[in-house]
This record gives sequence, C-alpha cells and structure tokens, in this order.
Amino acid sequence: MIARINKLRGVFTLQSSLLHVYTNKFLSTSSYLRDKRAALVLSGSGVYDGTEIHEASACLVHLSRHGTDVSMFAPDVKQMHVIDHSKGAEMSEERNVLIESARIARGNIEALSKLSADNFDCLVIPGGFGAAKNLSTFATEGIQCRVNSAVERVVQDFHRSNKPIAFCCISSVIAAKVLGNVEVTVGGESEEDGKWPYAGTVAAIRDMGGIHFYKEVTDTHIDHVNRIVTCPAFMGNAPLHHVYDGIGKLIFELLQLIK
Amino acid sequence: MIARINKLRGVFTLQSSLLHVYTNKFLSTSSYLRDKRAALVLSGSGVYDGTEIHEASACLVHLSRHGTDVSMFAPDVKQMHVIDHSKGAEMSEERNVLIESARIARGNIEALSKLSADNFDCLVIPGGFGAAKNLSTFATEGIQCRVNSAVERVVQDFHRSNKPIAFCCISSVIAAKVLGNVEVTVGGESEEDGKWPYAGTVAAIRDMGGIHFYKEVTDTHIDHVNRIVTCPAFMGNAPLHHVYDGIGKLIFELLQLIK
Repeated sequence: MIARINKLRGVFTLQSSLLHVYTNKFLSTSSYLRDKRAALVLSGSGVYDGTEIHEASACLVHLSRHGTDVSMFAPDVKQMHVIDHSKGAEMSEERNVLIESARIARGNIEALSKLSADNFDCLVIPGGFGAAKNLSTFATEGIQCRVNSAVERVVQDFHRSNKPIAFCCISSVIAAKVLGNVEVTVGGESEEDGKWPYAGTVAAIRDMGGIHFYKEVTDTHIDHVNRIVTCPAFMGNAPLHHVYDGIGKLIFELLQLIK
Repeated sequence: MIARINKLRGVFTLQSSLLHVYTNKFLSTSSYLRDKRAALVLSGSGVYDGTEIHEASACLVHLSRHGTDVSMFAPDVKQMHVIDHSKGAEMSEERNVLIESARIARGNIEALSKLSADNFDCLVIPGGFGAAKNLSTFATEGIQCRVNSAVERVVQDFHRSNKPIAFCCISSVIAAKVLGNVEVTVGGESEEDGKWPYAGTVAAIRDMGGIHFYKEVTDTHIDHVNRIVTCPAFMGNAPLHHVYDGIGKLIFELLQLIK
C-alpha cells in the first residue's frame, strides 16, 4: 500500500497544483463584482461530528449568487470525536477540524485564529453537530457549555462592530451562550409531532438568556437590535430544498443587515 | 482521551438515535408526493479524494425540488488514498468510500452492490476526484483505466434498461469508458484561457470512443439515443451558483428523459 501511495504521489502532485490554481480562482475576487465580504466558520465536514454539509453548501451557493466574496475559517483543533456516519457509531481515530473543514472549502481555508472582523462585513456559522461538539461543548454540557475561545472572540468582535451574523440550525446555541439576550429561532418548540426532533434545544436557549421564536424551515428570525439572523435548517424534518430555501432567506436577510 | 470518549458515548448514542429517526424521515417517501426514484452513487466526501461535496449537494437539492425519491449508494471499498484538503497532500491513513460517503448522505446509504436498476427510474453520478480514483482508476491510468466492477455493472444495467443516467463533471469519463460511443460534455476543450483547467480530459474521452461537446458550466449535453445527460460543473472555473444552476439543468433534463 505504501509503495502504491508513493507511486501515486507524483501524479497527485500535478493534479493538486492544478486544483489549487482552480480553487483559488473559484473563490477569488478578481473576476466578478464582489462588494460584500463574508467570513464563514466551519466545524468539520459531516453532520454528526462536523459542519452539516448541505447547510454549508447552501450558504455558499446563496452567498455566491449575491456576489459576496467568501473566506472560510475553522479552528485548528482536534475534533471531539469521529463518527462513522453510516452507523452513527464512534470510530477509534482522531481528525482535525481545520483539515476536515477544508473538504467543504475545497482547500481554501484558514485557521480561525486569523479571522479579524475588521476585514469582513458579516459572519456566517452553519450548523451540524460540529457547532455543538467542536465550536462549543453544548452537545455534552448543555447550558454549562464552553465556547471555543476563538469562536467566542470572533462572535463578540462582529457583534461589537455592529456587523451582522447568521447562525444556522444548532449553531444558534452559540449566539445565546456568547451574547445572552438575543432573539433566535431553531424552529419548533415541541418534539411531539416528530417534525422538530431537537426542540429541547429551545429550553436551553432560554436558560442561556436567549429569546426564542417559532419559525418554519423555510423562514428566518431577525434580531434587528443585535443584527443576528437565524434559521432552523436541519433542526426540522423537511425536504432538502426547504432547508436550501430557508438558508437562502437567511443569507438574503444577513446581507440586508450590512450597514 | 479514551476515557473522555467513553464518557461521551452515552450522550452520543441518544443523539444518534434521534439523528437516525430524523435522517430516515428526511429521506422517506411517505410524507411527500414522490413519483420518480433516483439512485445516486457517491465516491467519498471531498473533491480531492471523493465526491465533490457541492456537486452532490446540488444534485440532491434539485432532485428534492422535483419531488424525486433518492437513495444513495457507494462502493464498500478502501479509498485510493486520503488527501489533506487544506494542503493538497496525502495523509498516512486509510478511509472507506462507503463510510465517508455517508457524511454527504447523512447516514442514509447502502453498499453499491445492493443497487439494482430494477428499483429505480434513473441514476446520478456526481463528480469529484473520487470518480477518477475510487469509482475508476482514471486519475492514474487515464484511458487504460479500470472501472470498479459494481459501478460498471450498474451503469450497464441502467443503460440496457433505457433508464437515463446523469454524469456530472469528471464522472463523464466513466460513461465513455463503460459505454464507449456516447455523447458527453466536460465543458471547454482547451486549457489556454485558464477557464477549463482539466480540458485535457476531452482527448481522453475521445480516445475511449466518446463524442465531446463544448458546453458552458450552466449548460448540459443530452445524448438522446443513450439517455445520457452530462454537465461540466467544477471542470470549469466558475462561481459556485453557476455550478449549482448547471446541475439544476442536468437534473431537470435527466428527469425529462424518464419514459
């Protein structure tokens, strides 16, 4: 196997250099009119231990359609754990949040420690369990959770600068934990009909000082005072294109909030 | 670390059971009118060693919007290699194509060996280097490549049954290798202006018996005789929403070709 990998290394090096030219151009600002700059924070790649892939992709498609220049960041830390997504079971290996996030970013990503609110107009944090496992400890510690120090700094910096932030799905718990008295939605408020399997999150948000609003998957909530926009996304049991459309509204409202 | 993982296992088991209820409903046929059934074949999760994440997500959003019932499959084999997407360099570890593909599928995926054309109306194969590394050996062996035996069987079965197949991006080389005389597009035919960094693929497709048509990223080519639809997607240097829209046309045309 090692011999085979060595044999292939040369081939991939060539491909890789092409790919990097390509990905850089794909995300460059030179070719298209880009008047707003968004920072997007990832937490891995895969719903159970990282960023929810379809939420991140939807954010990026909508940001692209609005001509926004996007830079991606992730904390350069070990994942809480690695989940075999085919079984929902832990694997006995370790992965790095930044390296795995680079799969969504097509290689174009930087360490979160390098993100300064000064260089951007808005911030986007997609959901997925990575927000509750790698960006914070909410998945295991609930309202007693700690938020990754770089994430906390970044959220506070954008908030203090009156620059709008979009939190998607479970990442809204970070808004409540870091900022306290903010208005957010994670969708429905009861698990009873099976449509909102994580509705218990609402109580935690309230316990952390947040104010919750019931919204459908295709809708958002806007906190105009704090310039926070949130949407339920995969907190709800809905077809994928409803999640995509809800995120479309999230990104539209986010960009409207830029001064 | 092990102690911590063990401590967390109980918490995750609860979450995992919720997640599985959720993902199954997300993909279930019971709640929405679904009149067409699509099989989608993944090759890992991440452009450099698996399925291109945004291509797969776009396929799924558009299939969802058309009310299509989607089932996902991937070969239960080792990846050719694992690429650190933040550096474009090989990592000294091994990963399984089915397990990594499950990240895109949110856990709802089966081994490709279980896919029968009898149970579906159409087939979709998104791109990413996984199509050229895990579904075939095109990345290293070019026109002499071998196609994974399950992939070859599935493509032949759908083709023989006159059921349409969508190949996206680099996966079009599989169409040419398995079926020979088919019409496809991978976008532009020259690397000169930097817009089509993989245009060399066109010569390989012709050498394998395929007929190539130049199409823009937002466009598709339809081979009405073979019921094959293709689009360039990330073969081109284009904004993400153009890739998304091109895949929208791919899925629309695919569904139109169903008898």
